[in-house]
Amino acid sequence: MLQFELLATEGLARRGRLRLNHGVVETPIFMPVGTYGTVKGVLPQSLHDMGAQIILGNTFHLWLRPGLEVINQFKGLHGFEGWHKPILTDSGGFQVWSLGEMRKISEEGVKFASPVNGDKLFLTPEVSMQVQTALNADIVMQFDECTPYETKGQLTTEAQARASMEMSLRWARRCITEFERLQNPNALFGIVQGGMFEGLREESLTQLVAMDLPGYAVGGVSVGEPKEDMLRIMAHTPHRLPAHKPRYLMGVGTPEDLVEGVACGVDMFDCVMPTRNARNGHLFTRFGDLRIRNARNKQDVRTIDETCGCHACATGISRAYLHHLDRCGEMLGPMLTSIHNLHYYLNLMRDIRAALDEGRFEAFRATFKADRARGV
Amino acid sequence: MLQFELLATEGLARRGRLRLNHGVVETPIFMPVGTYGTVKGVLPQSLHDMGAQIILGNTFHLWLRPGLEVINQFKGLHGFEGWHKPILTDSGGFQVWSLGEMRKISEEGVKFASPVNGDKLFLTPEVSMQVQTALNADIVMQFDECTPYETKGQLTTEAQARASMEMSLRWARRCITEFERLQNPNALFGIVQGGMFEGLREESLTQLVAMDLPGYAVGGVSVGEPKEDMLRIMAHTPHRLPAHKPRYLMGVGTPEDLVEGVACGVDMFDCVMPTRNARNGHLFTRFGDLRIRNARNKQDVRTIDETCGCHACATGISRAYLHHLDRCGEMLGPMLTSIHNLHYYLNLMRDIRAALDEGRFEAFRATFKADRARGV
Repeated sequence: MLQFELLATEGLARRGRLRLNHGVVETPIFMPVGTYGTVKGVLPQSLHDMGAQIILGNTFHLWLRPGLEVINQFKGLHGFEGWHKPILTDSGGFQVWSLGEMRKISEEGVKFASPVNGDKLFLTPEVSMQVQTALNADIVMQFDECTPYETKGQLTTEAQARASMEMSLRWARRCITEFERLQNPNALFGIVQGGMFEGLREESLTQLVAMDLPGYAVGGVSVGEPKEDMLRIMAHTPHRLPAHKPRYLMGVGTPEDLVEGVACGVDMFDCVMPTRNARNGHLFTRFGDLRIRNARNKQDVRTIDETCGCHACATGISRAYLHHLDRCGEMLGPMLTSIHNLHYYLNLMRDIRAALDEGRFEAFRATFKADRARGV
Repeated sequence: MLQFELLATEGLARRGRLRLNHGVVETPIFMPVGTYGTVKGVLPQSLHDMGAQIILGNTFHLWLRPGLEVINQFKGLHGFEGWHKPILTDSGGFQVWSLGEMRKISEEGVKFASPVNGDKLFLTPEVSMQVQTALNADIVMQFDECTPYETKGQLTTEAQARASMEMSLRWARRCITEFERLQNPNALFGIVQGGMFEGLREESLTQLVAMDLPGYAVGGVSVGEPKEDMLRIMAHTPHRLPAHKPRYLMGVGTPEDLVEGVACGVDMFDCVMPTRNARNGHLFTRFGDLRIRNARNKQDVRTIDETCGCHACATGISRAYLHHLDRCGEMLGPMLTSIHNLHYYLNLMRDIRAALDEGRFEAFRATFKADRARGV
C-alpha cells in the first residue's frame, strides 16, 4: 500500500507524507543507497540514529547475491538486512544497462552473463517483479530500459530514444500485470524515460499516468549527460506528473541538485554520492565541500563542520584524525566520513522540510547557496 | 599515577582495580589493540558501549604517522583519537623487531628505515619515552628487545637470550631515567624477558622488581613459539611478580589462553586476535568458534550466538547476512564481526571478574571449557 498526502506547497516545491507498509516517510526525502543489502560502511543503527526513513536495495545485485533462496528464509530484505523501516528497490534495469557489451537487450528482456559466476541470466519485467516481490520492498520500480545519453561517443538520436522509451512503456504494462498476478501488497512506480527530449518525456509521462500507478519516477538522468541537460529535464518533467502522487528523481545528485530538484517539484532522491565520496575523502558540509586528503588538514584540530550534529562532528572527531585515518587506510575513516555525509544529506532534507512547513523555502534556498559558497 | 588494589584472589587468580590518570580499570582485563590510533573497524562509541575500559596504542606506528607534531596539537593520543578512558602504549620494541632484516640493533638502540617513506630513524629507550610522553598514555611500556624464538630456523640459544635480556634490563634503567627527566605523570611498566628459559626469566624479573616500577609485563611470548612453551612461561613468570602490582601478559591470546592466564595470576591482556580474526570471518563464541565463510552459514537465520549480548547479536544480525557481507566484500561485515569478537573478549573478562568476586573462578573455568567444546 501507499498513501501520499500533500501537506504544503511553495511554488512547485512540495512538502508531503508517504505511508508505506513499513512506515511513514516525510518528503522531500533523500534515500541512502544499500546496493548489496547494506549502506556501505554504515551500521543499521547509525542509519536509524541519523534519521534515515527509507533506504534503497538493488534488485540486480541481490538477485545474484545472496539470491532469492536466502532472501526467502527471511521473508524479504527487511529481515535479512535488519532494517525494519521502508525500502525501495530499483528494478535492475540500470544495472544490466551498465553491463555494456556484456548484455543483449530485446523486447522480451535482457540476457547477460552473471558478473559473479558467469551464469547466463535473463532479466525480464516479469522476473524483476518476482525478485522485488521476494524482496518485499515497500516501493517496487518498474523494469525499464535506461536510455543512454551516448553510445561509443554517438549521442542517442530522438528516434533511438523514442524506441527505447516505447519499449519501457510496454515493459511497464507487463510489470503491472505480473505485479498484480503476484498479489504484491506494496506500491509499483512507473519510470518516465525519453532521453534528453522533452517531447518524448511528455509522451512517456502521459502514457504512464494513464496506467494510474501510485507513484512515478524520472529515470534516464545522471547517465553521463552534461549537467545542463539534467537540469533541463529536471525542470521539465517532475511538475508535470500528477500532483497527488509522489515523484522520484533517480540517481540525483549533489546537495545543489537536491535543493533545485525540490524547487522543481521532486519528492524523493537517491544517490551513491554521499557514501562513495565519503570513501574518497570528499566531505559535504553546509559551507562547501572539504577534501580530507589535502595536506592542510594534517594538523587541523577542528571538526568537519562546527554546526554539524552528526556522530563524527558531535563527538569531536577532527579533520586531522580523519586525514590520518585516510592516509593509513584505516576502515574507521570511511565509517566516520560516510556517517557525516549521509547525515549532511538527510539533515539538508530535514531543513528543506522545515522551510516548506513554514513557507520559507525560497529564503532557505538563498541562504543555502550563500552558505555553500562561503567555504569550509 | 597508578594505584592498584587487590580485591580478591582464588588460587593464583586475582581480581583487582587499577586507577590511572584517565580512569579506573577493573582487572582481569582485555585491552583492544588500536595500532594507528583506531581499533580497526570499530567506532570509539561502540568500544564505549561494549564496555572497553582501556585500549592500546602503538608508539612505533604513531611516531611515524601522524607523527608527534600532530599528536602535540591534541596534547596526546586521547584527544586525537577521541578516546577519553585509559590508554596503554607499547614501546615500539616489538614493531622494530618485526622489521627483521630492515633494522639494526645495537646497545644504543635500533636503527631502521621508515616503512612509510624510507626515512632513516633511530629508536632508543630515550626516544621511546619521549614519544610515549607526547602520546600521554596512562601506561607507558619500557623499550625492550623482544627476544626471538628462532632466527632463520635456528632456535635462540640461552646465551643469546641472556644477552638480549640483559640489554633490555639496561634499557629499562635508561627508560626510568628519561621517564623521570620528562616528569611523565603516568605509569612506567617494566618488561620481563628471557626467552623460553625459566632461569633467565627469573633473573630478569628479580632485577626489574628491584627497580620498583608500578607494574610489570611478561614480554617475548606470542613470538612464534609452540603453544606449550608459551603456556610454560605463562605458568612460570606472572605469579612470581610482586602481588601488589599489576601484571600484564603481552600479545596473548585465544579465549582459552586468557582464562588460563588469569589462573596463572595475569591481570591484563592484549591481542589483535579478536579484531584480526573478525576481519577474516573467524568468530569467537561461548560455544566455540564459527567460520562465517563456511557454506553452511549461507541460509542460517540464527544470530552468531543466541546467548550473546553484542550489538550484532542483540539486533538480530544473522549468520546468513554476515556470510553474504563477507562474500560481497562489504565493509559492514568486518564492522559487525569486530564488534562481536571484541564484545566476546570483553564479556569473557567480565564473567571472569564476576566469578572471582564470588569465589567461583574454578567452577567458571570448568564451565567455560565445557561450553567452548560444545560447538556453536
